[in-house]
Amino acid sequence: MIVPRVGIGTDIHAFDADRPCWLAGLHWPDEPGLAGHSDADVVAHAACNALLSAADLGDLGSNFGVAEPEWAGASGVTLLTETARRVRAAGFEIGNVAVQVIGVRPRIGTRRAEAQRVLGEAVGAPVSVSGATTDGLGFPGRAEGLVGIATALVYPTPAPSA
Amino acid sequence: MIVPRVGIGTDIHAFDADRPCWLAGLHWPDEPGLAGHSDADVVAHAACNALLSAADLGDLGSNFGVAEPEWAGASGVTLLTETARRVRAAGFEIGNVAVQVIGVRPRIGTRRAEAQRVLGEAVGAPVSVSGATTDGLGFPGRAEGLVGIATALVYPTPAPSA
Amino acid sequence: MIVPRVGIGTDIHAFDADRPCWLAGLHWPDEPGLAGHSDADVVAHAACNALLSAADLGDLGSNFGVAEPEWAGASGVTLLTETARRVRAAGFEIGNVAVQVIGVRPRIGTRRAEAQRVLGEAVGAPVSVSGATTDGLGFPGRAEGLVGIATALVYPTPAPSA
Ligand SMILES: [Zn+2]
Ligand SMILES: [Zn+2]
Ligand SMILES: [Zn+2]
Repeated sequence: MIVPRVGIGTDIHAFDADRPCWLAGLHWPDEPGLAGHSDADVVAHAACNALLSAADLGDLGSNFGVAEPEWAGASGVTLLTETARRVRAAGFEIGNVAVQVIGVRPRIGTRRAEAQRVLGEAVGAPVSVSGATTDGLGFPGRAEGLVGIATALVYPTPAPSA
Repeated sequence: MIVPRVGIGTDIHAFDADRPCWLAGLHWPDEPGLAGHSDADVVAHAACNALLSAADLGDLGSNFGVAEPEWAGASGVTLLTETARRVRAAGFEIGNVAVQVIGVRPRIGTRRAEAQRVLGEAVGAPVSVSGATTDGLGFPGRAEGLVGIATALVYPTPAPSA
Repeated sequence: MIVPRVGIGTDIHAFDADRPCWLAGLHWPDEPGLAGHSDADVVAHAACNALLSAADLGDLGSNFGVAEPEWAGASGVTLLTETARRVRAAGFEIGNVAVQVIGVRPRIGTRRAEAQRVLGEAVGAPVSVSGATTDGLGFPGRAEGLVGIATALVYPTPAPSA
């Protein structure tokens, strides 16, 4: 019997209108950007954290932080691709990843299919992307930032891996 | 080998004491209501979002938003029933849904069995409902609103579906 | 076919610098503590809530609240051990638990292996612990408190249980 594992991961960044907006692996030309190292893509970063959490591989900070400077400034999609590679190298297959972005803008639903294609190719498994607002409450409701929240399912590779 | 899929979904509404309180599929006569279209049932809505997320069917907005005006004003239980129908129509069985409501009131534990029965009948699978407070922190701690947060597990229907 | 179940759970406490800091089952001698009954270990408590949610056993309040005064003041690890026992007594095996702690300090990554060992022994199954910050946003970003957010996977015990 193969027992899958689940993981959870969030990621949060503040808006910074002087930066380009990258979200869910896409460039959003008419939207304010997010502050942070790299592209601050909360959807891609939450997906990374959920996969690492499921596979017991730490988090974004331990995988791509100061100890691995070659990843500084890498895009969310690049980090997600490498995350999926590390998850498989640790002996897991990836079932799926599901991410919700919480905040007032961009409206992810307008480009869902495109986002899911880009993120799904990075992961090599289905990635669903959904959105929600907060009825004006909290920092997401005040349009101060965005939250990405994700879960992921992985399972041990059936055949023995090296 | 059948690989299940997981999903995640949140929903947030502000309190509006002038409205009736509907939460977890139940009417709470002595509690302040929540603002929003429909009944603003954050537990039912979070459950919908988690199921749609797991089945890669978008979110509440894309399923029951302005493009489908016949659902305007529908109750949370009605939306949850229709969500479960759409998940099955897309070729998935529903394993379970788990929802936590975060905030100071109502205390969900006082009516857990009743809530789980109503929501479980809507979904056609077990729905667990739990509660937590925030130690006075954030908008839930200031009693400005409620958060519903949910996860769901679905799996491809073993026999081919029409 | 054995269908697993997933659960979700959060836990939040405010900092109280006059208390010792217990987080993820560890004592952090140089860090401000958290307010609350017991040790206010948001990682252990979120793990408990996720397991109870997956197994449809209520939440921390219904399991260890005023109705069961013998648990007042129990440590997070003690509650997690008892939670795992109750989950198994209800007929479930525990696949894994994944917890993320959200806030500015302590930096969980500095003691991840130690935390995962202590929590994993309490649960009797793998527990992954990860961390994230909020880019200064919200109460976690203002260092007013910590959030623990967890998911868990359980499955019915294959052999019939008493
Ligand atoms: Zn990030
Ligand atoms: Zn809603
Ligand atoms: Zn707690």
